[in-house]
Amino acid sequence: MPDFPYRTALIVGAGPGISASLARELTSLGMAVGLVARNVDKLAGLAEETGAHRFAADASDPASVEGLFDAVGKEIGDPDVVIYNASARARGPLAELDPVEVQKALAVTAYGAFLVAHHAARRMLPRGHGAILFTGATAGIKGFAGSAPFAMGKFALRGLAQSAARELGPKGIHVAHVVIDGGVRSEARPEPTDTPDSMLSPDAIARSYVSVLRQERSAWSFEIDLRPWVERF
Amino acid sequence: MPDFPYRTALIVGAGPGISASLARELTSLGMAVGLVARNVDKLAGLAEETGAHRFAADASDPASVEGLFDAVGKEIGDPDVVIYNASARARGPLAELDPVEVQKALAVTAYGAFLVAHHAARRMLPRGHGAILFTGATAGIKGFAGSAPFAMGKFALRGLAQSAARELGPKGIHVAHVVIDGGVRSEARPEPTDTPDSMLSPDAIARSYVSVLRQERSAWSFEIDLRPWVERF
Amino acid sequence: MPDFPYRTALIVGAGPGISASLARELTSLGMAVGLVARNVDKLAGLAEETGAHRFAADASDPASVEGLFDAVGKEIGDPDVVIYNASARARGPLAELDPVEVQKALAVTAYGAFLVAHHAARRMLPRGHGAILFTGATAGIKGFAGSAPFAMGKFALRGLAQSAARELGPKGIHVAHVVIDGGVRSEARPEPTDTPDSMLSPDAIARSYVSVLRQERSAWSFEIDLRPWVERF
Amino acid sequence: MPDFPYRTALIVGAGPGISASLARELTSLGMAVGLVARNVDKLAGLAEETGAHRFAADASDPASVEGLFDAVGKEIGDPDVVIYNASARARGPLAELDPVEVQKALAVTAYGAFLVAHHAARRMLPRGHGAILFTGATAGIKGFAGSAPFAMGKFALRGLAQSAARELGPKGIHVAHVVIDGGVRSEARPEPTDTPDSMLSPDAIARSYVSVLRQERSAWSFEIDLRPWVERF
Repeated sequence: MPDFPYRTALIVGAGPGISASLARELTSLGMAVGLVARNVDKLAGLAEETGAHRFAADASDPASVEGLFDAVGKEIGDPDVVIYNASARARGPLAELDPVEVQKALAVTAYGAFLVAHHAARRMLPRGHGAILFTGATAGIKGFAGSAPFAMGKFALRGLAQSAARELGPKGIHVAHVVIDGGVRSEARPEPTDTPDSMLSPDAIARSYVSVLRQERSAWSFEIDLRPWVERF
Repeated sequence: MPDFPYRTALIVGAGPGISASLARELTSLGMAVGLVARNVDKLAGLAEETGAHRFAADASDPASVEGLFDAVGKEIGDPDVVIYNASARARGPLAELDPVEVQKALAVTAYGAFLVAHHAARRMLPRGHGAILFTGATAGIKGFAGSAPFAMGKFALRGLAQSAARELGPKGIHVAHVVIDGGVRSEARPEPTDTPDSMLSPDAIARSYVSVLRQERSAWSFEIDLRPWVERF
Repeated sequence: MPDFPYRTALIVGAGPGISASLARELTSLGMAVGLVARNVDKLAGLAEETGAHRFAADASDPASVEGLFDAVGKEIGDPDVVIYNASARARGPLAELDPVEVQKALAVTAYGAFLVAHHAARRMLPRGHGAILFTGATAGIKGFAGSAPFAMGKFALRGLAQSAARELGPKGIHVAHVVIDGGVRSEARPEPTDTPDSMLSPDAIARSYVSVLRQERSAWSFEIDLRPWVERF
Repeated sequence: MPDFPYRTALIVGAGPGISASLARELTSLGMAVGLVARNVDKLAGLAEETGAHRFAADASDPASVEGLFDAVGKEIGDPDVVIYNASARARGPLAELDPVEVQKALAVTAYGAFLVAHHAARRMLPRGHGAILFTGATAGIKGFAGSAPFAMGKFALRGLAQSAARELGPKGIHVAHVVIDGGVRSEARPEPTDTPDSMLSPDAIARSYVSVLRQERSAWSFEIDLRPWVERF
């Protein structure tokens, strides 16, 4: 297997699930890892465990994201892997949704992804090397009733990812979109005991991200889906 | 052919192209038509020609859209057809786009569509009758290089439309998404003379919208595409 | 509305449902109509009612389809509209299906569509005018468990339709694929009385086919879906 | 990383490209591997190099495929990994294609895949364990002009794969569809020297197949695409 081709990863929207597993996998490969959240206090344990660095930023705020990339560059170097993991949703019937909540959900799920991809591209293009991964959802492929804001945000994310892949791929930057189709296990949301592996293991998800990062440029994936064996789709 | 089932249409994002043809088609069917734009001065000729009413509103502003539906209700009655036609784009390489321009483009193309659909649903649900049509684009199906903001906006629009269709269809409201795949002819952008019909006629587009509106509820279309015969796709 | 642009239609896979409604709609527009089935005895009533002509052929047999187009050309003239409506399915778990039945199902649903499109193209290309419509199904978009042969056939049909549209469109031939998403009402399979219009009306389907045929070449649809208002999708 | 979960692989449609790389990767993991082709003489070198076994069969012939699985079961044991790699195409304008050639192409690309999946499922279901991988192509997602038979075959293959995944996944069998989007390098078709990695490396493809096989059942991929960094899509 070829050597792992990246050195510094930034994980935006870091929490206890997929991001924590990614931090463990990527640091175990020798990468420097930055974890980004609005409130980084909650990341103290993970940072200590993995040696990852913490950065506070609001992904939906242009100035905050610009400052984030400056700070990351100084502290751990410009990232050659950027993973966008943040999302927010507002649920409810279309006629009853609060427009302010919807605006916030779109800002985090879609506009923040743009801001992060924008600055990631600015840092990666001069070197012609890097990878940008977007964490998508079934809602980005199919718009469900009662969940319009999440559909809007995750569809927009997929459109961004496609556009970025077509633009940045031929410049040496691997862009990929991962469709998470199912619930992800967590302490707060353990899987039902009667059907083992009926919810996605965050560690298993992280291993598939690493597989995508290991791909050589003659055979890159743009999109992969991940779902539990018993998930209906 | 069954009688035309609607009486009052609101066309949001009214300009000289598809919206003008829709205004002509729908008024010729006896509908009351409201035309919505930020600047309604430019709609004076069309309003006079067709008898359509004009309403000034900013589709991306929650208060403005709420006021719009109030004003329309008073002046021509609550609409049973609402067509969302507005969009804005910011073009350029991902690394060079202006985040403020991108935010504005998403607000008009996607968030405004949500606001309009939200208020349309509030007015239509009590009667269990109505139609909401969204004007989509190829960019809502495929994200092109150099056009990330338009891809984001039009993908989000399609996600909204799918979610709305699944929620509102069983409540009697016909939601449809029309993919316009090609350039639309206009005075400002006439088609090349060497290939007739190589750009979409706005009148032909409007006739297909009317065909969708004529569908009875046992056989509704959610999505149709429209493109010139010579268009590559 | 522009004049109806076609004169002679061939409906392959004619039975009591969609095809009968199409025969009524198209003859009422003044078209000469040919109905094709393996056993044309069952079409006697419809032929008498509509004035349509009957042709016996096996759509999955190359020689039979070649003979069909010769016979049609002599009796009612070369068709400028050809509609492929035939399909067959074999249901059951993948491990229990009979390979012979599967082969037959693919022959009718997909290979027959190729044969008919092949001969339709040969007749239409010299005149640079015509329309070929394929009756698709949800199974052509999504492969369901327990229904692999139908998924294979309807997916193949959609692939054929796409390829034909891209090749023949710029030569003046309108190719379209209609996704029928739901059960079609018939005498043998009436809709449940508690939910009106919960199954597709074949007359409503036929009217949408006619709308597609009426489209002018600057704004052709390649694909439309049709489903009842209460259908889950 | 968890242990590799499979022991015996059958590669149908074995030739010098992807199949050879798969044979090397899978035997290096300690798997017993069977290579299937109509003419196995050409596989002598590969078999000697890798220790893989050779089996002669015609994938489009029901009796031949049934005999194949019997022979494999006796010689190397029932496979818990089956990869369908065979395809055939007939190119040309729709009106000029030879119906006999089209029938043959569909038989190899689609019907053979069904036969192989049918027998694979019969062997795997009793153990509730296994993986079936289908090698797809861009032509299975988009039907190109001048290539209707390949579109039909590869669309049908994708429909089969989807149906099989939905049926067999909850029974413990991992079904996946890999979209190869670009030309694969070979001795006969080397890549242009001016753009390195502009054609897919078969070794890189094989490594992605192995990544899919390594996935644990809480996070299986159904579909991944693979394309060179400079490929337009």
